[in-house]
Amino acid sequence: MSAFRIFCDAPLSDSALGFLKQGVAPHELVFSRRASQLVLARSEPDPGLRIADIAFGQPDIADVMESERLRWIQLTSAGYTRYDTPAFRSWARSRGVIVTNSSGVYAKACAEHVFAFMLAQARLLPQALGVRCESGSPQWMELRQGSVLLQGQSAVILGFGAIAARLLQLLSPFEMNVIAMRRHPRGDETVPIVTVDNLRDALAGADHVINILPDNAESVGFISAQRLGWMKPGAIFYNIGRGTTVDQRALAESLRSGQLGAAWLDVTDPEPLPDHHPLWKTPNCHITPHTAGGHQNESATLVSHFLENFRRFLAQTPLHDRIM
Amino acid sequence: MSAFRIFCDAPLSDSALGFLKQGVAPHELVFSRRASQLVLARSEPDPGLRIADIAFGQPDIADVMESERLRWIQLTSAGYTRYDTPAFRSWARSRGVIVTNSSGVYAKACAEHVFAFMLAQARLLPQALGVRCESGSPQWMELRQGSVLLQGQSAVILGFGAIAARLLQLLSPFEMNVIAMRRHPRGDETVPIVTVDNLRDALAGADHVINILPDNAESVGFISAQRLGWMKPGAIFYNIGRGTTVDQRALAESLRSGQLGAAWLDVTDPEPLPDHHPLWKTPNCHITPHTAGGHQNESATLVSHFLENFRRFLAQTPLHDRIM
Repeated sequence: MSAFRIFCDAPLSDSALGFLKQGVAPHELVFSRRASQLVLARSEPDPGLRIADIAFGQPDIADVMESERLRWIQLTSAGYTRYDTPAFRSWARSRGVIVTNSSGVYAKACAEHVFAFMLAQARLLPQALGVRCESGSPQWMELRQGSVLLQGQSAVILGFGAIAARLLQLLSPFEMNVIAMRRHPRGDETVPIVTVDNLRDALAGADHVINILPDNAESVGFISAQRLGWMKPGAIFYNIGRGTTVDQRALAESLRSGQLGAAWLDVTDPEPLPDHHPLWKTPNCHITPHTAGGHQNESATLVSHFLENFRRFLAQTPLHDRIM
Repeated sequence: MSAFRIFCDAPLSDSALGFLKQGVAPHELVFSRRASQLVLARSEPDPGLRIADIAFGQPDIADVMESERLRWIQLTSAGYTRYDTPAFRSWARSRGVIVTNSSGVYAKACAEHVFAFMLAQARLLPQALGVRCESGSPQWMELRQGSVLLQGQSAVILGFGAIAARLLQLLSPFEMNVIAMRRHPRGDETVPIVTVDNLRDALAGADHVINILPDNAESVGFISAQRLGWMKPGAIFYNIGRGTTVDQRALAESLRSGQLGAAWLDVTDPEPLPDHHPLWKTPNCHITPHTAGGHQNESATLVSHFLENFRRFLAQTPLHDRIM
């Protein structure tokens, strides 16, 4: 087994870095001249990349496409919009370069985040926390009677990947009626699948619409005024995919009119929304600042996910979270 | 089968009342002169009770104990502190009167409520909702890195009944390490059980301490300064049992000192807490106004739970949620 040179521009904690060094030894680790501060940020061009066999991080696309040596790139994000171009795909395919992402790292946390949204909504936490009201008062009755059991409710999940699969595990004790939309059903899904063409009925019957769509040419504006109009009156909309997939003006209108019961968004377009954006003041619109994938020891989880794939790469077995 | 006379003082919705009438026919339904507005409130004395065979609601104890006819009482609450006296227990036992409560009605909603607390805490929703921060900013990093996965964490549940059993079902996909405390283990528990005498180690190892203790002579002040001191630094404390089980002054001190990471309380003593109570201003103390058991169609669920027990009563099979 010849030694590989692994380029890394991921901003890792010291302990995660030690873990990475130990995990790849005796292979060589080369670092970016300037590790990007941000998982999603584009790194500066970096000559270190051109001598590497493997890249782990968010490598610069121009640098990547000039490399003669790269065989595998593992992105530290789940999203990969910047790399998802015909030119890049064509380059990767023609060179036989494997591209993986880190969706497995974020899937559990993202699933727990949207699940937290669902339960916070069901128990009316935004309305109930910190409220001082007497038992039997009108406000108390409203809170108690407005709370709903998730059990037996219906949901549509838009986008069936690692997050949806984990979410379905978490939802299983609730005996909900769940349908998922997947553009290209593969037969490995654990719930009934609809495609874009027959989404209307699914939306019309769902108490919860959970959007996990990634950002790409097909998904931009997917949650349009028309599709919002198809949703069941009072439905709750969640977005932990990408902000660009939603017509935010139409969403705000649906909330103001009461067509939707509430929206819970971890992603918006842009991020963060500007101070005066109408969604900040839209009733029943609850926004977190793209924290869904975060969790303690995220750096360590990124590294262990990479190391697991590195073992697979060395053993020439299929890698997890392959996207190209 | 002779006809029974059923006394009802529960404040039911019209549809639930229709459901009850239909469900008990051809047996006779007699109503309280003044249905109490509150599930937990003590009703006025009511002569209608004295001619009834069965009582459904919150019947007056003095009236109940003067009845020559009563054979079964179903309370519309889960709590039954008012009835839990030696005199009442002795009366029920000597007369062969069955007493049931409605804990099954509230168990699912209570379990979902405390689970909503756990996930809201894990995802830092109180800190993250409505926050406008840039990706990569110190605030953003703090939110992402402060979020934790429930998966693999440890919890102690104090009080093993219907709520705990349901909560354990909901937690099962998270593969947490859960221990429960039960005063008198029965052998039907689905997790390891500790008793009061060996609680210390369990508290010291738990990321989450979930209090579901009812209000009774043994439970008052159970969460004492000493037991709070035994908890793991940074542990999260939840209370959906009764407020009297907690030394609230000691709880506030544990939160202020950082010994506890946060507290989530649906019950307090008194309820609601007065405006100037220190817990309102204690850091990381999150309070809902005793709404945990509430859910849409609660009235109908109370009635269907009663009707199920009524069928069992007629068939002379064991009733659900028997407390005496």
